[in-house]
Amino acid sequence: MRVGVLTGGGDCPGLNAVMRAVVRKGVQRYDYSFLGFRDGWRGPLEGDAMPLDIPTVRGTLPRGGTILGSSRTNPFKEEDGVRRIRENLAKHEVDALIAIGGEDTLGVAAKLTSEVGIKCVGVPKTIDNDLSATDYTFGFDTAVQVATEAIDRLHTTAESHMRVLVVEVMGRHAGWIALHSGLAGGANCILIPEQRFDIEKVCGWVESRFKASYAPIVVVAEGAMPLDGQMVLKDGSTDSFGHVRLSGIGEWLAKEVEQRTGKEARTTVLGHVQRGGTPSAFDRWLATRFGLHAIDAVHDGDWGTMVALQGTDIVRVPLREATEKLKTVSPELYEEAGVFFG
Amino acid sequence: MRVGVLTGGGDCPGLNAVMRAVVRKGVQRYDYSFLGFRDGWRGPLEGDAMPLDIPTVRGTLPRGGTILGSSRTNPFKEEDGVRRIRENLAKHEVDALIAIGGEDTLGVAAKLTSEVGIKCVGVPKTIDNDLSATDYTFGFDTAVQVATEAIDRLHTTAESHMRVLVVEVMGRHAGWIALHSGLAGGANCILIPEQRFDIEKVCGWVESRFKASYAPIVVVAEGAMPLDGQMVLKDGSTDSFGHVRLSGIGEWLAKEVEQRTGKEARTTVLGHVQRGGTPSAFDRWLATRFGLHAIDAVHDGDWGTMVALQGTDIVRVPLREATEKLKTVSPELYEEAGVFFG
Amino acid sequence: MRVGVLTGGGDCPGLNAVMRAVVRKGVQRYDYSFLGFRDGWRGPLEGDAMPLDIPTVRGTLPRGGTILGSSRTNPFKEEDGVRRIRENLAKHEVDALIAIGGEDTLGVAAKLTSEVGIKCVGVPKTIDNDLSATDYTFGFDTAVQVATEAIDRLHTTAESHMRVLVVEVMGRHAGWIALHSGLAGGANCILIPEQRFDIEKVCGWVESRFKASYAPIVVVAEGAMPLDGQMVLKDGSTDSFGHVRLSGIGEWLAKEVEQRTGKEARTTVLGHVQRGGTPSAFDRWLATRFGLHAIDAVHDGDWGTMVALQGTDIVRVPLREATEKLKTVSPELYEEAGVFFG
Amino acid sequence: MRVGVLTGGGDCPGLNAVMRAVVRKGVQRYDYSFLGFRDGWRGPLEGDAMPLDIPTVRGTLPRGGTILGSSRTNPFKEEDGVRRIRENLAKHEVDALIAIGGEDTLGVAAKLTSEVGIKCVGVPKTIDNDLSATDYTFGFDTAVQVATEAIDRLHTTAESHMRVLVVEVMGRHAGWIALHSGLAGGANCILIPEQRFDIEKVCGWVESRFKASYAPIVVVAEGAMPLDGQMVLKDGSTDSFGHVRLSGIGEWLAKEVEQRTGKEARTTVLGHVQRGGTPSAFDRWLATRFGLHAIDAVHDGDWGTMVALQGTDIVRVPLREATEKLKTVSPELYEEAGVFFG
Repeated sequence: MRVGVLTGGGDCPGLNAVMRAVVRKGVQRYDYSFLGFRDGWRGPLEGDAMPLDIPTVRGTLPRGGTILGSSRTNPFKEEDGVRRIRENLAKHEVDALIAIGGEDTLGVAAKLTSEVGIKCVGVPKTIDNDLSATDYTFGFDTAVQVATEAIDRLHTTAESHMRVLVVEVMGRHAGWIALHSGLAGGANCILIPEQRFDIEKVCGWVESRFKASYAPIVVVAEGAMPLDGQMVLKDGSTDSFGHVRLSGIGEWLAKEVEQRTGKEARTTVLGHVQRGGTPSAFDRWLATRFGLHAIDAVHDGDWGTMVALQGTDIVRVPLREATEKLKTVSPELYEEAGVFFG
Repeated sequence: MRVGVLTGGGDCPGLNAVMRAVVRKGVQRYDYSFLGFRDGWRGPLEGDAMPLDIPTVRGTLPRGGTILGSSRTNPFKEEDGVRRIRENLAKHEVDALIAIGGEDTLGVAAKLTSEVGIKCVGVPKTIDNDLSATDYTFGFDTAVQVATEAIDRLHTTAESHMRVLVVEVMGRHAGWIALHSGLAGGANCILIPEQRFDIEKVCGWVESRFKASYAPIVVVAEGAMPLDGQMVLKDGSTDSFGHVRLSGIGEWLAKEVEQRTGKEARTTVLGHVQRGGTPSAFDRWLATRFGLHAIDAVHDGDWGTMVALQGTDIVRVPLREATEKLKTVSPELYEEAGVFFG
Repeated sequence: MRVGVLTGGGDCPGLNAVMRAVVRKGVQRYDYSFLGFRDGWRGPLEGDAMPLDIPTVRGTLPRGGTILGSSRTNPFKEEDGVRRIRENLAKHEVDALIAIGGEDTLGVAAKLTSEVGIKCVGVPKTIDNDLSATDYTFGFDTAVQVATEAIDRLHTTAESHMRVLVVEVMGRHAGWIALHSGLAGGANCILIPEQRFDIEKVCGWVESRFKASYAPIVVVAEGAMPLDGQMVLKDGSTDSFGHVRLSGIGEWLAKEVEQRTGKEARTTVLGHVQRGGTPSAFDRWLATRFGLHAIDAVHDGDWGTMVALQGTDIVRVPLREATEKLKTVSPELYEEAGVFFG
Repeated sequence: MRVGVLTGGGDCPGLNAVMRAVVRKGVQRYDYSFLGFRDGWRGPLEGDAMPLDIPTVRGTLPRGGTILGSSRTNPFKEEDGVRRIRENLAKHEVDALIAIGGEDTLGVAAKLTSEVGIKCVGVPKTIDNDLSATDYTFGFDTAVQVATEAIDRLHTTAESHMRVLVVEVMGRHAGWIALHSGLAGGANCILIPEQRFDIEKVCGWVESRFKASYAPIVVVAEGAMPLDGQMVLKDGSTDSFGHVRLSGIGEWLAKEVEQRTGKEARTTVLGHVQRGGTPSAFDRWLATRFGLHAIDAVHDGDWGTMVALQGTDIVRVPLREATEKLKTVSPELYEEAGVFFG
């Protein structure tokens, strides 16, 4: 058996660890050979591939990013995409594919398996932890740790200067990174995309914090938004993402808090630092186990499934199911964190 | 309601985070007051207590150890222990207790609740992650991360000097820290207390590793033991723990590997570094949630229960059940890791 | 002898370590007592003080920020400032002052000593490392380490996505943080305030980097500026700092590089994360030694001097001299780094 | 010009960074070619070499260890050693050598240059920082940082359990790592090889520490020794290194303190963790600058010299001079740290 491997979407610490485990077990236990496709679905689409064997993946466990490269190419949006993939797989004598990626990458894998009969197994990857059917995805723990360490560092500045510090973290549609790093970092308020925030309440928390102890730290997910009407752009229009995309919600929030409370406020946008670099021990463990179980699924011919973490077990779930619903922060969980606000 | 809090057994990153969450929610949501008992069960036994309120726990989230101190005192082994505890609780007007600790500390809490009618709620704590009924305990992730970072550092020395490096990590009865840090650190063999190891196999892995790439790293739990008869002490006796306690299994292993393979071998014993210091983001999040749910259990009058992590949910389980069985690494899980040995 | 201590200007990891050393040696060796003034020169100006003894400074060595708070208050700009300081020192029976701060704070100390006869000793503090007369100031090493770790993390994203990553670091007038972290992080080009950069050259380096290996990382100090005429604002005006203050040089650079090279570019602005949090071992050592020598200078009655690092020795230099010239990156040193550009 | 490069002695974070800088500048500015010799002087002795060009050194800046491998081979102790080196250099058309190493490696380089006329330039390397003529050597800052982080972690355990914690760090003949990490970590006593310690004084500090606050941390260099007669071995003999080599000074100290003070004591031996792994930002900067200046020395034909750090300048000093004297901790510097003991 010859297995193709590809990584799609944004990079995530742990991608290499998955591949290392896939190859290691595939070669040693099942006597498979492997081929790495470059840049997600662009690889099989254009026949761009590289060898993937034990020496290739050696030493990659602690390395962030992906040695295969990544892209957001979708073969269903390319002319003749499916036919070209089929031909390239045949040409390279690839019998099955392991696709490591998020909603989009795995959606393609699901469709290729069910509609075209290409044998795919999926490994879930999303830094935002917003894929349902798995308790966690690798990369998320690293992102939370990086954000938490940054918040730790900001506390001392908040303490010494009596300034409001706004930290913008990743999370366009789901607030998991904000929630976890905000709780772990001791933030005084956490704003997530799942619930529109009231800027007046935020200012209230800021002010009560100043009274109770020292300066507040506000953690805001990049996708968080204020209540309708609160974000008034300079020219009078409201809620336009055009402005937000330019300056970011963090910067907007700092300015707004400064104006309304009279306290100095500063923003830190962590950006790509959260998704790069060496994976945490948890993420290396999770990614490694995902890889070991993905190659088992290939061996079992369990096409159209994805590996997933449930509790401490790695299980298999249908790809379709796994990708159809976004996993977001529930109102109950957000309410639970609220005890620390203010 | 006035709630007493105590921490027992070995220290663990996250103890303070639990207390901070307990106090924060207890005061703000339920209007409770709190009393901290010093040094585990010694506190209520001797009436040694300190105030515990929001200012006391402020800033303790990132701090390792426990501001209450700890001990291994067992009131059931002290003369008149139970009566003295009852009196001291009455004297301090304490209505209920939250006990944060491992098997021993929680065992006392279980017995006090069921046999004596003292109202206890438990929070599980074990750096070794060996309590059943909870997927993880706080402190474990930090220990694994510390051990993994150490292994990362040792790789470069192994690489440059062609030496076998033996890393001894915590785990007297369960090999979780060894298993997770060994997998995350890319160890070439992992030895755990659950399965006696064959020193000849270990030497075989060491030698095959030298052939394949560079020098091997062996991760060994402090409680791991070789097969019967392999550990021959100088005076001819075998398997005596007297010797092992003196020099440690790591050191024994290094010497043995050196003698049998002719390769230089060095040992690093991580020791207390694994259990001290600031908790990882994961452990802060887990400890905080444990605290929030423990005070909810008090509010619900759910005596004799312990909070536990199952998947991503915090649930309650009977204290008795939680402490009666050690959670160890299953043969299947150990076998899964074996693909990376050698 | 009773000694007042104050910390002025922006916070810096190591401020508490200086105070701890001052107090520890002052109390134990010289039998002095201490008073901490709050928020820089505002403290003695308004008579706002707190006790400072061994228990107060215990445990502060690893803590960032300053337990005394800080401000940019300048008594020479306040009505009756000098008289009020003199009165408050007399009222609190303070015989001498140790001022820990940058150019401004130390400038005040120099003037108070020479013009008014108030006995001051200075300890240099600038995260930017731009004070002449000392090889390094504490806090700088920590900032460089934080920035370097961020750059390390960004490499994997650059590698996986073929994007230009721009990292904006601190340094309004001096490029030391950019130079050191850029060299340590393996940046492909470093832009500093001391030399206007040519955006076309930067784009050339970006393009040659893409050809040679993977994507480039550009480190830019917040005070760096392009050549005259290259920064054209939307309305046609050039080089206005109004715009730059809004969006930052990093963001401008990313947009410009994107437009000119057609490669995707992203910005990370590290901001306050660089100046907060626990000091590096180097900074704790330097801050501790500065503190020990500052109290020696007080004991020797060496007023109007500042402690400074020269090689591995702590020496004393006149405050006047130390603050009159900014220490900037020399053309030779910048040229030396240039071998890694592109 | 064709330049050979080798790394000798124990590994040290920063070795690869030196080589990367040497090659980068040598190729780009001077148009040199390079050859890497494997395992220190064994390489030129046996003609074991590998290509060394820009692609080879790419990405090695953050990697600890040495891609060339290392050894303690001394060609002057090998039969016909010098002649064989000469022949191998001729055979590979190598015109000059850059030797990166400590006392031994550089001693050979000095002798080869002065006695045999082989053109050598040296780069100093010692994790212990004990080479005179340079303020610092790379690797030392990383080791101190690793040890300091470990001490930070141990504080919380000391605090929670009222135990004496002994930390054994590297330093056989010089106590620099112990002194710097002890000061940076807030140790309660620091023991170095330069001064025999009085175990009774140590116990006095331990006891006074328990009275003043919480439990003490003792940092001891591996080469530290008690006063004559204090180390009595079980069989009655004294000061024999045989015993010490077995159990280590740290373990001896813990047992002795436990017996004399009645307080529980535990030892952590950091070992190889201190010398492996990614270099700190300071060490990367220093190693990079050493590399840049070493290739300049080659270009200038300045044979028999070594690059060195003096203040913030890289200078050249005669190899002979640099290696003839060990740099140790002066009594004054040790006395300065003594204010924190107890």
